[in-house]
Amino acid sequence: MLKVGIIGASGYTGVELARLICRHPGAELTVATSRQYAGKKLSAIYPSLLGMTDIFCQNITGSELAGQADLFFTAVPHQTAMAIVPDLLEAGKKVIDLSADFRIHDAKVYEQWYQAHSAPEYLAEAVYGLPELYRQNILAARLVANPGCYPTSVILALAPLLKAGVIKSDNLIIDSKSGAAGAGRSASVASLYCEVNEGFRAYKVGEHRHTPEIEQELGLLAGRMLTVSFTPHLLPMSRGILSTIYADLCVDIDREGIQKLYQEHYQGEHFVRLCPVDQLPATQFVRGSNFCDIGFKIDPRTGRIVVVSAIDNLVKGAAGQAVQNMNLVSGFAETDGLLNAPLFP
Amino acid sequence: MLKVGIIGASGYTGVELARLICRHPGAELTVATSRQYAGKKLSAIYPSLLGMTDIFCQNITGSELAGQADLFFTAVPHQTAMAIVPDLLEAGKKVIDLSADFRIHDAKVYEQWYQAHSAPEYLAEAVYGLPELYRQNILAARLVANPGCYPTSVILALAPLLKAGVIKSDNLIIDSKSGAAGAGRSASVASLYCEVNEGFRAYKVGEHRHTPEIEQELGLLAGRMLTVSFTPHLLPMSRGILSTIYADLCVDIDREGIQKLYQEHYQGEHFVRLCPVDQLPATQFVRGSNFCDIGFKIDPRTGRIVVVSAIDNLVKGAAGQAVQNMNLVSGFAETDGLLNAPLFP
Amino acid sequence: MLKVGIIGASGYTGVELARLICRHPGAELTVATSRQYAGKKLSAIYPSLLGMTDIFCQNITGSELAGQADLFFTAVPHQTAMAIVPDLLEAGKKVIDLSADFRIHDAKVYEQWYQAHSAPEYLAEAVYGLPELYRQNILAARLVANPGCYPTSVILALAPLLKAGVIKSDNLIIDSKSGAAGAGRSASVASLYCEVNEGFRAYKVGEHRHTPEIEQELGLLAGRMLTVSFTPHLLPMSRGILSTIYADLCVDIDREGIQKLYQEHYQGEHFVRLCPVDQLPATQFVRGSNFCDIGFKIDPRTGRIVVVSAIDNLVKGAAGQAVQNMNLVSGFAETDGLLNAPLFP
Amino acid sequence: MLKVGIIGASGYTGVELARLICRHPGAELTVATSRQYAGKKLSAIYPSLLGMTDIFCQNITGSELAGQADLFFTAVPHQTAMAIVPDLLEAGKKVIDLSADFRIHDAKVYEQWYQAHSAPEYLAEAVYGLPELYRQNILAARLVANPGCYPTSVILALAPLLKAGVIKSDNLIIDSKSGAAGAGRSASVASLYCEVNEGFRAYKVGEHRHTPEIEQELGLLAGRMLTVSFTPHLLPMSRGILSTIYADLCVDIDREGIQKLYQEHYQGEHFVRLCPVDQLPATQFVRGSNFCDIGFKIDPRTGRIVVVSAIDNLVKGAAGQAVQNMNLVSGFAETDGLLNAPLFP
Repeated sequence: MLKVGIIGASGYTGVELARLICRHPGAELTVATSRQYAGKKLSAIYPSLLGMTDIFCQNITGSELAGQADLFFTAVPHQTAMAIVPDLLEAGKKVIDLSADFRIHDAKVYEQWYQAHSAPEYLAEAVYGLPELYRQNILAARLVANPGCYPTSVILALAPLLKAGVIKSDNLIIDSKSGAAGAGRSASVASLYCEVNEGFRAYKVGEHRHTPEIEQELGLLAGRMLTVSFTPHLLPMSRGILSTIYADLCVDIDREGIQKLYQEHYQGEHFVRLCPVDQLPATQFVRGSNFCDIGFKIDPRTGRIVVVSAIDNLVKGAAGQAVQNMNLVSGFAETDGLLNAPLFP
Repeated sequence: MLKVGIIGASGYTGVELARLICRHPGAELTVATSRQYAGKKLSAIYPSLLGMTDIFCQNITGSELAGQADLFFTAVPHQTAMAIVPDLLEAGKKVIDLSADFRIHDAKVYEQWYQAHSAPEYLAEAVYGLPELYRQNILAARLVANPGCYPTSVILALAPLLKAGVIKSDNLIIDSKSGAAGAGRSASVASLYCEVNEGFRAYKVGEHRHTPEIEQELGLLAGRMLTVSFTPHLLPMSRGILSTIYADLCVDIDREGIQKLYQEHYQGEHFVRLCPVDQLPATQFVRGSNFCDIGFKIDPRTGRIVVVSAIDNLVKGAAGQAVQNMNLVSGFAETDGLLNAPLFP
Repeated sequence: MLKVGIIGASGYTGVELARLICRHPGAELTVATSRQYAGKKLSAIYPSLLGMTDIFCQNITGSELAGQADLFFTAVPHQTAMAIVPDLLEAGKKVIDLSADFRIHDAKVYEQWYQAHSAPEYLAEAVYGLPELYRQNILAARLVANPGCYPTSVILALAPLLKAGVIKSDNLIIDSKSGAAGAGRSASVASLYCEVNEGFRAYKVGEHRHTPEIEQELGLLAGRMLTVSFTPHLLPMSRGILSTIYADLCVDIDREGIQKLYQEHYQGEHFVRLCPVDQLPATQFVRGSNFCDIGFKIDPRTGRIVVVSAIDNLVKGAAGQAVQNMNLVSGFAETDGLLNAPLFP
Repeated sequence: MLKVGIIGASGYTGVELARLICRHPGAELTVATSRQYAGKKLSAIYPSLLGMTDIFCQNITGSELAGQADLFFTAVPHQTAMAIVPDLLEAGKKVIDLSADFRIHDAKVYEQWYQAHSAPEYLAEAVYGLPELYRQNILAARLVANPGCYPTSVILALAPLLKAGVIKSDNLIIDSKSGAAGAGRSASVASLYCEVNEGFRAYKVGEHRHTPEIEQELGLLAGRMLTVSFTPHLLPMSRGILSTIYADLCVDIDREGIQKLYQEHYQGEHFVRLCPVDQLPATQFVRGSNFCDIGFKIDPRTGRIVVVSAIDNLVKGAAGQAVQNMNLVSGFAETDGLLNAPLFP
């Protein structure tokens, strides 16, 4: 069994990792850290895990921590991650980092959107952990930068179109909507039930930190640097992201042609599900699963294509994709521990 | 007291009209029709109205109906409305029609998106009931075509920009999200609690019937015909519409300039609230009220402006705006019966 | 105009008071205090109030505070209230206290469930502010102890039965369920959207501090001391309390008899609505209103009556009832500012 | 592989069975019936199952149906089930019936609460499918009457107490709350999103058809016939049942004593989780799983014990328990296909 550690186990991403690992056929959770809940059972913080794992949260770092597992998930905020990851790598451990710290290849861009980077020397080797794009590199990686939730939904939706060159890349409009789990478990007035319930709003319009990550990856697919309009919104629900993306078609292609592009691009990909022609995804149909569902509609009146993608932000948008990456770097079948059907209703 | 009738009183729009009328200082509900619930008290169908109104639903039409009120709200589906409205007008009644039947000036456009029009001779006199744009015409109207919910949120958001000519009008992207009340009260699987709850989806992408209505009004504001991308989505909540609109700025203008445009355009308008600079609206802050809240963000990286507007789809998006129109055509103060504060949380 | 102050204006109860006062025909909000948000407009904290009130939050106390209004609502936690109320009373102001500090007549009982009482000398004059039971006393009061949300729903439901002596008073079972607004606006993990949404739980079983308040009032109605089982639960919704109450019938009486008891007891009461026989209330039908809806069912198999009552916990359970009390102590019509219909859907 | 058929596959219980079967290590779904959706892929009706199963819905009956599987789940309404089950049994198939038709041992009691029974000759051999109580009988059964959702939550909560004789059995009060999935997927106004959302109500007070089932099983545990007060409520959420049960203690026992009773009774039971002392269950912590969580509180003031239990009504309350029964009658490990952790948040 692969020994696995979760650093930052008491957040929503951390506990989602625990949920998946406790049922993984080849991995076992051997260490879970939490500053706030050190000394408590993870199942006391999250009674959902009662009977699933007996692990206690610890507040340990450095070599004491590194010694307890072969592979680590760092489910901590950006800036915290970059202070932990180098030590783990130097101790010979593999790391799946769920923060943003190693996703942006260019340290200058990172520092523009986040803050100073304390470990830029690791940026070159970090592999952007979107298996559907970078599987071969991930297989050989010791540091995987697990993608952001919004970027996952956007990049998978646009990859086939940008690669095929059928859409213009200079005026992409990305309107994304996320469930509240994405905001994490810290106590803040803005995340209270009564503030989120029965309400809907946009936030950080044009300023969200996932923007450079989206632009980096879409740019690589398009073969040119690009700038996007990206607007995140907060949905009154717990799990799920839906991205609605507007692009101008630049070649003459019909829906069968587009559908074929998607089918060919994602042939053999277990976790990307293409909706039947003229159907569109909905977040409720991917809940709890590692699927990314994609659909599209061509609007002949405007010459635009509207692509819609749906993921569970805690699974394909975070913990599930991280386990997928763990599977790749550890020699497991890529789908191990990730085969459950979505939970509907 | 003005005698008021609601045709189609047992739907969500009908009962919202009843909720507003029963507290209106100058109007009283004298007749309410419902085929399905004829003979039942409206408060038996909607216990929320217990103690507020004792009216019974009737299944009557023609002169029997026309004789019972001075002004009628037709809260019935399109096609049904056009069969009822002419008789009421001929009987000398005023009509606020909440269906789509008299919103589109060009019968050909109407028939392209809906079905054959049986009363096109009334299209010319029908006034599009957006008081913030057409107040003078409404004051003199006997037939007011109450705007659609989505169009209200979109047109109010864009009017100042289009009139001032600061944005391009040929590539507007409108991404709208609506609460479930917009789908009405008919029993359908798609509207069941378990189908809508904890889920989010786009629907009728590029095909929604509010598209020609939006294009007509934006075109009039821009002074040229235009085509928009319009995507509606279904939110897991009851009330509220939020529209996120993307436009290319075509003049050099900063946020203070834009804010000033909005302030001047909506000066004196009671029901349009402009968010303080850099703040954006949220549906939970207009719930139950007739307000349309508007905010915007300029994205210097893309040269685009993102405008966000929020309304309660049953109030400013339907019944509240209808009462606002009733007030205008009946000589009441425009805000009568509509002054309540939004309900938050 | 009566000058009104809200102490603790930035909590959910405080802002609900502001919502009601800003539309009250005879009162105006002249001072609003908040330690956390001093210097900010109340409408900046709650954009729902934009255009409804321009008041700024202040952090003032003592005579500086007392001088700014004629009547004060203290919407602060217990223990905080008892430190503020005496000064206001001594300054000649009337006070509607929304905390628990003056609800329990017996200081010993209060201290058993809460903590030491610093102003027990005011307990004797404080009037328990349930107008349907104590209207005459409230009319003459300078200090009104506004009832708790759960107690309001329970006492109104049982008063006619206990007074008439048709149920046993020694084994009442009260199973109550509340929306999340009751927990207030403080940032706590337990109140986060993701913790409350799609979930349901009991809490403080047999230990909730509303228990002695319920027992005091039911005991006075029954004419003997009594002990109840009271279990509160947290509902995944914002507003509303529904109480399901089980009592053994001790006389031979049928549903018409019971219905008559309720009708006679609540004759002329505007804010108590009795459901038609065999119908039961639901929280969605009182939302945003000051109504308490009551229904019941006799179970011949067990000889029990099940009484169900529904209120909006922020209105009849807090701010609405407080305004009702303000109306009484200030000579307004009891229903002033409270006549709006519930918001459904 | 065991060949499995689902009769009534397009309802919420049917699709939940499909979700579980498609990941079961020893069973495969070979036939799924639906009158309404015959000819459609199950994954077209429920896109959650896209990529999980390719099965088509059929409208077949009799021998044509019986020939396609070894074991059948009948996920159809009562009365429909009793018309189908005998043929399947006579064809030598095993049946897990999820309707109420074979749960009540006494046909007279059944007919009092439901309607005439057309196959009473099978009542004697039908085994009530609560494995924690009747495992040995289920192992040998060919017809398992899968328990109702409410009864499961109630019987598991009370079994240890009734068996040990520590509570009075003649005045049990059962206050249950259920998510909307329990109402099924038929289009009805009462189940619309806007009717259920942000609302809470009791229904069928003292009249719910699960009452005789609860009384039968509690009576068997208590060793005497008994009558209970049972009140179901509808929660504004999709999945989950929480039951709050009030009983008078009739022996001198403290919380450690009660906890020990539960521990001994449920020792070795995988799907019953006892909350740590003084903690109570919540529905969100069993979501998507086959667990029944149980906690309790002794109230020394009233001499009562309050027991609280939580299940997912579609899993332990329906499809999960049915798979557990399938496992028993088919020689699989009892937990096969049911080991996933609950989904939280």
